[in-house]
Amino acid sequence: MTTGVRRRMGVEERRQQLIGVALELFARRSPDEVSIDEIAAAAGISRPLVYHYFPGKLSLYEAALKRASEDLAGRFAEPREGPLGARLLRVMRRYFDFVDEHGPGFSALMRGGPAVGSSTTNALIDSVRQAAYEQILSHLGVSEPPARLELVVRSWISLAESTALIWLDGRRVPREELQLQLVEDFGALLAVSAAHDEEMAGLLRPLLGREPGDGPFADLVTRLVGLAS
Amino acid sequence: MTTGVRRRMGVEERRQQLIGVALELFARRSPDEVSIDEIAAAAGISRPLVYHYFPGKLSLYEAALKRASEDLAGRFAEPREGPLGARLLRVMRRYFDFVDEHGPGFSALMRGGPAVGSSTTNALIDSVRQAAYEQILSHLGVSEPPARLELVVRSWISLAESTALIWLDGRRVPREELQLQLVEDFGALLAVSAAHDEEMAGLLRPLLGREPGDGPFADLVTRLVGLAS
Repeated sequence: MTTGVRRRMGVEERRQQLIGVALELFARRSPDEVSIDEIAAAAGISRPLVYHYFPGKLSLYEAALKRASEDLAGRFAEPREGPLGARLLRVMRRYFDFVDEHGPGFSALMRGGPAVGSSTTNALIDSVRQAAYEQILSHLGVSEPPARLELVVRSWISLAESTALIWLDGRRVPREELQLQLVEDFGALLAVSAAHDEEMAGLLRPLLGREPGDGPFADLVTRLVGLAS
Repeated sequence: MTTGVRRRMGVEERRQQLIGVALELFARRSPDEVSIDEIAAAAGISRPLVYHYFPGKLSLYEAALKRASEDLAGRFAEPREGPLGARLLRVMRRYFDFVDEHGPGFSALMRGGPAVGSSTTNALIDSVRQAAYEQILSHLGVSEPPARLELVVRSWISLAESTALIWLDGRRVPREELQLQLVEDFGALLAVSAAHDEEMAGLLRPLLGREPGDGPFADLVTRLVGLAS
């Protein structure tokens, strides 16, 4: 008797379904190129009904971005156990998983997508960057970062963003290499700053001292010594 | 007889004057906070006359951004003489001069200013990044960059942008330190990539081999050795 009868969804359930459908479409093509008609068809509802749940494409886009932002920020969470380099490498793998899953949507957003300049969009992007920043400080065990540490961490976050964006444009370098390299880049940028500032050196020495001989930082030093010889 | 008589300016001359006045105001306060009335007053003309030369604030903003972009791209030009590290350090000084001179305007633009998302604005920002990228490749003597070199150069450019933006927010680290550090960061990111890839190592070895003992790269290595001991 119920075969073919579509169960009616509640408002919040339908909104969540539409967000999921939109994210799936944005993962294959830039949000600019995805119409409300397509989203309606993929969700199996009419175009006017989409507008019943979201007053316009921008509001659906922002809701999708909000879910994606929470998803990404959630992937930064990493237990405070074991060597720092290995922790950061696990986070980088999950970061590239996310970038891989959301390719065109991620590119469009970061390069200036349909909602660019909207204060909601900017606030969501900033909230993800801030979540990354706070996670890193917490793993470093620093609650009041000196200006130079803040600068290294925040500028490395932007390096990780641009590395992911450039990777997406053609995927010409294996992502495993870039994940490891970003971990090593983080150590390298910290080292450059520490080379000029005693406070940074004082922060870095005990951290590196606890890294194991088979971790990414030791691996980098070994490779660099090989490169120099 | 001519005292107090204001010479009439030609159209192009007046446009250039208004662009200059706007850039001066944007150097002290965010473009969002600068009104056409203020620009008119600073230029000594009426508000309607400003609209005669620029149909709206966006078109004046875009014209100002165009001049600033050309100014910045011009500062990347550096003679192909002497060690690479010293050349890049001179460019970094001029880059921070520019950032220093255009503080609030630069921040507003890069963080999402009044014209963000406008295709003109995005194209201008991209043209400056592309100019930086091409200058660096030309100094490296590379015409067909492998994917890994493109990745290092482009992601370093974004590192330089975010470093300048974070510096502007409080200026808590001396800019001289950051200028030198960005040069060293460039070497460090190249080295990390070269540590994983033979082609990059082959590019980097002869470049570093030509760097003098008193240049920024040798300075960094000396400092890092001191840090490690």
